[in-house]
Amino acid sequence: MKKIVLTGAHGALGSVLRAPLSRMAESLVSTDILDQPKTLMPNETWSVADLGRFDQIAPLMEGAEMVVHFGAVVDEKPFEELLGPNYVGAYNVWEAAYRAGARRVVYASSIHAVGMAETWSGVDTETAHRPDTFYGLAKCFAEDMGRMYWEKRGLEAVCLRIASCTPEPQNARSLGTWLSHRDLVQLVTRSIETPVVGFTIAYGVSANARAPLSNARVGFLGYHPQDNAENYAATLLSRHTPDPTDLAQTRVGGPFAAVPLGESGMDALRAISGPAVKPDGT
Amino acid sequence: MKKIVLTGAHGALGSVLRAPLSRMAESLVSTDILDQPKTLMPNETWSVADLGRFDQIAPLMEGAEMVVHFGAVVDEKPFEELLGPNYVGAYNVWEAAYRAGARRVVYASSIHAVGMAETWSGVDTETAHRPDTFYGLAKCFAEDMGRMYWEKRGLEAVCLRIASCTPEPQNARSLGTWLSHRDLVQLVTRSIETPVVGFTIAYGVSANARAPLSNARVGFLGYHPQDNAENYAATLLSRHTPDPTDLAQTRVGGPFAAVPLGESGMDALRAISGPAVKPDGT
Amino acid sequence: MKKIVLTGAHGALGSVLRAPLSRMAESLVSTDILDQPKTLMPNETWSVADLGRFDQIAPLMEGAEMVVHFGAVVDEKPFEELLGPNYVGAYNVWEAAYRAGARRVVYASSIHAVGMAETWSGVDTETAHRPDTFYGLAKCFAEDMGRMYWEKRGLEAVCLRIASCTPEPQNARSLGTWLSHRDLVQLVTRSIETPVVGFTIAYGVSANARAPLSNARVGFLGYHPQDNAENYAATLLSRHTPDPTDLAQTRVGGPFAAVPLGESGMDALRAISGPAVKPDGT
Amino acid sequence: MKKIVLTGAHGALGSVLRAPLSRMAESLVSTDILDQPKTLMPNETWSVADLGRFDQIAPLMEGAEMVVHFGAVVDEKPFEELLGPNYVGAYNVWEAAYRAGARRVVYASSIHAVGMAETWSGVDTETAHRPDTFYGLAKCFAEDMGRMYWEKRGLEAVCLRIASCTPEPQNARSLGTWLSHRDLVQLVTRSIETPVVGFTIAYGVSANARAPLSNARVGFLGYHPQDNAENYAATLLSRHTPDPTDLAQTRVGGPFAAVPLGESGMDALRAISGPAVKPDGT
Amino acid sequence: MKKIVLTGAHGALGSVLRAPLSRMAESLVSTDILDQPKTLMPNETWSVADLGRFDQIAPLMEGAEMVVHFGAVVDEKPFEELLGPNYVGAYNVWEAAYRAGARRVVYASSIHAVGMAETWSGVDTETAHRPDTFYGLAKCFAEDMGRMYWEKRGLEAVCLRIASCTPEPQNARSLGTWLSHRDLVQLVTRSIETPVVGFTIAYGVSANARAPLSNARVGFLGYHPQDNAENYAATLLSRHTPDPTDLAQTRVGGPFAAVPLGESGMDALRAISGPAVKPDGT
Amino acid sequence: MKKIVLTGAHGALGSVLRAPLSRMAESLVSTDILDQPKTLMPNETWSVADLGRFDQIAPLMEGAEMVVHFGAVVDEKPFEELLGPNYVGAYNVWEAAYRAGARRVVYASSIHAVGMAETWSGVDTETAHRPDTFYGLAKCFAEDMGRMYWEKRGLEAVCLRIASCTPEPQNARSLGTWLSHRDLVQLVTRSIETPVVGFTIAYGVSANARAPLSNARVGFLGYHPQDNAENYAATLLSRHTPDPTDLAQTRVGGPFAAVPLGESGMDALRAISGPAVKPDGT
Repeated sequence: MKKIVLTGAHGALGSVLRAPLSRMAESLVSTDILDQPKTLMPNETWSVADLGRFDQIAPLMEGAEMVVHFGAVVDEKPFEELLGPNYVGAYNVWEAAYRAGARRVVYASSIHAVGMAETWSGVDTETAHRPDTFYGLAKCFAEDMGRMYWEKRGLEAVCLRIASCTPEPQNARSLGTWLSHRDLVQLVTRSIETPVVGFTIAYGVSANARAPLSNARVGFLGYHPQDNAENYAATLLSRHTPDPTDLAQTRVGGPFAAVPLGESGMDALRAISGPAVKPDGT
Repeated sequence: MKKIVLTGAHGALGSVLRAPLSRMAESLVSTDILDQPKTLMPNETWSVADLGRFDQIAPLMEGAEMVVHFGAVVDEKPFEELLGPNYVGAYNVWEAAYRAGARRVVYASSIHAVGMAETWSGVDTETAHRPDTFYGLAKCFAEDMGRMYWEKRGLEAVCLRIASCTPEPQNARSLGTWLSHRDLVQLVTRSIETPVVGFTIAYGVSANARAPLSNARVGFLGYHPQDNAENYAATLLSRHTPDPTDLAQTRVGGPFAAVPLGESGMDALRAISGPAVKPDGT
Repeated sequence: MKKIVLTGAHGALGSVLRAPLSRMAESLVSTDILDQPKTLMPNETWSVADLGRFDQIAPLMEGAEMVVHFGAVVDEKPFEELLGPNYVGAYNVWEAAYRAGARRVVYASSIHAVGMAETWSGVDTETAHRPDTFYGLAKCFAEDMGRMYWEKRGLEAVCLRIASCTPEPQNARSLGTWLSHRDLVQLVTRSIETPVVGFTIAYGVSANARAPLSNARVGFLGYHPQDNAENYAATLLSRHTPDPTDLAQTRVGGPFAAVPLGESGMDALRAISGPAVKPDGT
Repeated sequence: MKKIVLTGAHGALGSVLRAPLSRMAESLVSTDILDQPKTLMPNETWSVADLGRFDQIAPLMEGAEMVVHFGAVVDEKPFEELLGPNYVGAYNVWEAAYRAGARRVVYASSIHAVGMAETWSGVDTETAHRPDTFYGLAKCFAEDMGRMYWEKRGLEAVCLRIASCTPEPQNARSLGTWLSHRDLVQLVTRSIETPVVGFTIAYGVSANARAPLSNARVGFLGYHPQDNAENYAATLLSRHTPDPTDLAQTRVGGPFAAVPLGESGMDALRAISGPAVKPDGT
Repeated sequence: MKKIVLTGAHGALGSVLRAPLSRMAESLVSTDILDQPKTLMPNETWSVADLGRFDQIAPLMEGAEMVVHFGAVVDEKPFEELLGPNYVGAYNVWEAAYRAGARRVVYASSIHAVGMAETWSGVDTETAHRPDTFYGLAKCFAEDMGRMYWEKRGLEAVCLRIASCTPEPQNARSLGTWLSHRDLVQLVTRSIETPVVGFTIAYGVSANARAPLSNARVGFLGYHPQDNAENYAATLLSRHTPDPTDLAQTRVGGPFAAVPLGESGMDALRAISGPAVKPDGT
Repeated sequence: MKKIVLTGAHGALGSVLRAPLSRMAESLVSTDILDQPKTLMPNETWSVADLGRFDQIAPLMEGAEMVVHFGAVVDEKPFEELLGPNYVGAYNVWEAAYRAGARRVVYASSIHAVGMAETWSGVDTETAHRPDTFYGLAKCFAEDMGRMYWEKRGLEAVCLRIASCTPEPQNARSLGTWLSHRDLVQLVTRSIETPVVGFTIAYGVSANARAPLSNARVGFLGYHPQDNAENYAATLLSRHTPDPTDLAQTRVGGPFAAVPLGESGMDALRAISGPAVKPDGT
């Protein structure tokens, strides 16, 4: 492969993807609104760009085959604050990718596109949109747009509904929703190397013993996660007080399902998570 | 009812709704980006406002129980041109309605939210989003937002996926998709007077003999259209050359399904429609 | 037909059925826990019997081909009070009908078997059980039993999920759920005369313009209601204050969905209904 | 339209179609294995041909836009006897139509493609194949072939699952399954004049009050039957003895569901039907 | 956790659960209609009580957070014999649990709630009720009641449709349906420790190579059985004579699907099972 | 077991099955249109027979309990060439098996029965027929026939939709669709030894990491493949040029989905596969 573009390259997930993506193509163009990190991969180029500005995004796409779009504000905010980076940004990426003749967009969608679904309802890749926040609504918007670019223009997309991607599981909910960095890398890698994908939705979740999300319909992607949050179960369950009246516990969106629209879900998430858990689960 | 707000009051459909809406409430606040028409209803107030400007929309909502949101650019355009009125505008209306304590939004969604569905596929109110244009994508966005406002904030919504609302059917496709003005009025009226609706999607289509769209799941709304495009069948079919390779004929979105993204679907629509058809179908 | 047995013959619905049933068979055996009315049909026999007593029910079934089982306590009560008549009574009827070699049970099931379903959710005859009361739970029990008697013993059943069967519609909800007496008679008649039914569920609802319930899957029964609550719409809607947070309005079970388990739903129903409405809807 | 080809033109149904089809095109080519009837339509040509012989069928198709394929042995027979006319014949028609550049095949499929489905199971156009005879299996074969010709070659098809098409309803079952000649004509007419159909399945059934078959998903065809077997109900039900253990009564295929494979279903059908019923149902 | 109540503590399955449950809470209250076993767990209290008597059950629930309801007559019997323990008993447990403020009921439902489903039909947790016996019908009743207590009162429930829970697989059918004691313990443990469950149905089945039952929709429970009946396959298959006309072989309920209503299914089960099979499958 | 009949015993797959089948019954009757191989199994008899000739097939079935029907032309050809062996042959086998009193047919159906389904569409055993060739259409025909023989005559069938059964995976597509010989043997073995199967469809696919086909609904068969094409991924992906406009890549039927009807799919398959891949994937 000649060229991959990665947006949100400075983000928590984008940072994890730079190394593996650089190994998949002759050149990796990383972009973020922030300056470049101290060191780049040998074949990596860094471009500071605002996702909300088509004129800044479009030039990066020239000659790209794959666009890995992970750039966004990663929290619930008032709609106005998300409009540029999360909504218009997604449009700019798809449109620029199309104009540049790219073959596919691999997109960081989110569990929050279906965050209001009940935890016990058997959520799979055909579950209808039930966003829990303006953040999740932006993911719904981009997924629908991705389907349209495929159906109208033949630009492929894999929309990864990422659940809880952190170095370690953080709370009782993430026993089901955790996505390890290693599994994230596998999922993105497979989303790139699978020969054809058309328009595909997949959940970004590890092989957790308690996963409420099913990828059974997208076996063709070959995503087989290796990590399991279960090692952390004893510690995380012991910190947790079950409450069947709390939307943060009954819906797959967790704290985002419970916060008022426009208010930080990450703050709510931090509030229910205690101190970091060690690799052995303590 | 004390107050109804109507957006897009100067539009082709909004104009039809002003009189009947004015009879359903003590006051009707009509708004559009255009100046008011020559005459207003006795209890009607007109406000020029830009849907893309929250500060202009919000004040109109004070004290409203129902918001009938029909304002939008009514054609396919480049995304950037639709962003303000069709996307941000929908957000502004829902958010302002919520803050004002309104009970419900009745929204002019569109067949183009599912425009890529095959004509013969049995489209109903559970058909998943398959937008055919940026115009249709805006409808998908607003529908998902409407569900979220209901699930998170208890603001009800009826999303009317309007098909082909014109005084007379215009072409062979509209033998199935026509919505007469009289039936539009009934549909909006029922969407307002039905005591509870939660989040509901319904098709805006007349009682056409050849309708490809089914409202069977939303019988509770009590929408029973009275008009039927069938009188026009002989004339319109005689003008039409069937082509099973033409997306404009095989998809419920019609010409919008066939036009390139960002290019006018109305122009395409006019191209396939000949001169106006008379009431007797000639 | 030689013989039909009618239980609950003294009830509001049973009383309506006596005359038409008497015309469908050589003899009609009517039973209730109450004494017989002043006059009987020429070919009608009356037997006072307690549904909860198998020894009282069984003898009535001898030689019967059809059993029309409408006997029950018709309100929400503590489980203990419904156990005899509504639960054990249903068993006694099915078991006695089977032992007597009857061909079919036509059963007064109820909308309350699915009463917790949202009004706008497209309820049809495949909607899963979601009882709203112990009263509705008894209907679920009898429906499941009816399916078992069919699958294990070949005893047919039609379970009629009756909605709001009253002489006139009583409140805004019954604009959708009303079942007129005339339509009840047609529905029971068709349930008897249809040659084979296996195990069938159908809704007992008139041809209301606003019906939230669909019999589309059971067209073979030939039930075509003639009445429509719409005449009463203006009056009943004018008395009603919509409240989307009230379970009595958002669920098809109406007031039964909102009352605490074990407490009278009929009292709640009367509370939301005003004085009787006249045939012209006033 | 220039030319329509009708196969099985001498059959009970084909005979009914000749006049209306002749009015829809400049020329009608009628074919059958039998000699021509005494009189032809002015623009009708008759060709004796064996459906099982490609060399006899292919020449007829030249210049045809529509092929109305009603030719077949119309009864259950040993597979070997149906192989030529019903299986190979269907292939010959589709292949010849394709080679001739025809736009569409309108095919006389049959209820017997799903004949083993229970009468009360809510049969619609998405019900999976459950053939009841080799006769019905041939219809399954042709339907699957029709889908393939559409998906691979763009040749459209409407497969009409005809139920009981006779001048008058003949027995209790046909109160649900009757298709009048008038409605057959409408159904075929609509299947021809609808601009695009892709691959479509529809039931050939009149507007019978007791129809067990639903065309709700194919409203776009605009088929609105006008006849109803209900006038005959009293007479036909009075002749009938219900038996819930009889496959001929519990399955939509009727007698065909009950006869041994390879044995005449029409004989069985005649056995359950008494003498002809008059137009007033007597 | 402060307190767990276990009903049916003297039963074959209850006995297996006492030790593990005693380790999950400060106190375990075990109850049965039989006297206590010789030894109790250190924190275990034993109460003899009749499930059919609310006054005996209610006092046990005080202060309980979890109720593990395994008490019932474990065989098909005439309805009258099951009414008290299996029907009224289930009600008594749910009602008492609710009044005591318990958070959840973990219930021993049964495969016999869907026992009439075909073995090859892909049975999962959304399969509709098809009870095979009065025993299975009691499970349907309790499941519907459990859903109601959740929807109306917020009392959670996990209904475990236990298949064939025995120390070793007993016959060819149990190669698919076996639930080992170890896996039973895991399933109940997970049903208790999962933070929120709302209303959930899961199958009680081991990781059998030939399992006809799927828990794919309830992955969030984290139930991962460890045992597999496959070791016993050679022995058990060699004892078995396949018969596709035998309901005991074609339905997931096995012998219960074949026995007449009211007659012992356990006798039938023993009849098809030979002598006990050893741990190595001999 | 007394006797198994294997058709197509000289074919690529039949050859693999002879040894294991010979170990499952006292006698194995192998048949093919070709002469016998040099050596037979000790209990194996070879009969040269033409599948298209009932008189040649029928005598082989006498006394057989199981028929493993793998005989067919294994490529796309003009319909006329497949008619005898693939269509009539399947009929002859089923009919002869039935007349001989056999219990079951295990049939080599094919992925090409649903070959037009999109690779990413979640294909499972309930996916409707979408044949890609006359070859695949023959499989649809036989599957429908198999269901009919089960429903009408009690002759069981397992239809194995075999994907890409070769010694080694041959191309990028077969990373998902490969079926190893070892797994083929297991699948056929399980299809024989499972006590009852009624009518069952299962996919013949190994435990490939990238399998687009799901057997989740037929767990009762106990098929647990052991091989995985993943070892070959690096080599095969490196040879492949993705093209989302190529039906051979976007449909599960692969090259068969892309070839014109009647033209060799095996040639197309060979064209996309390079030289043989070694066991270590090189």
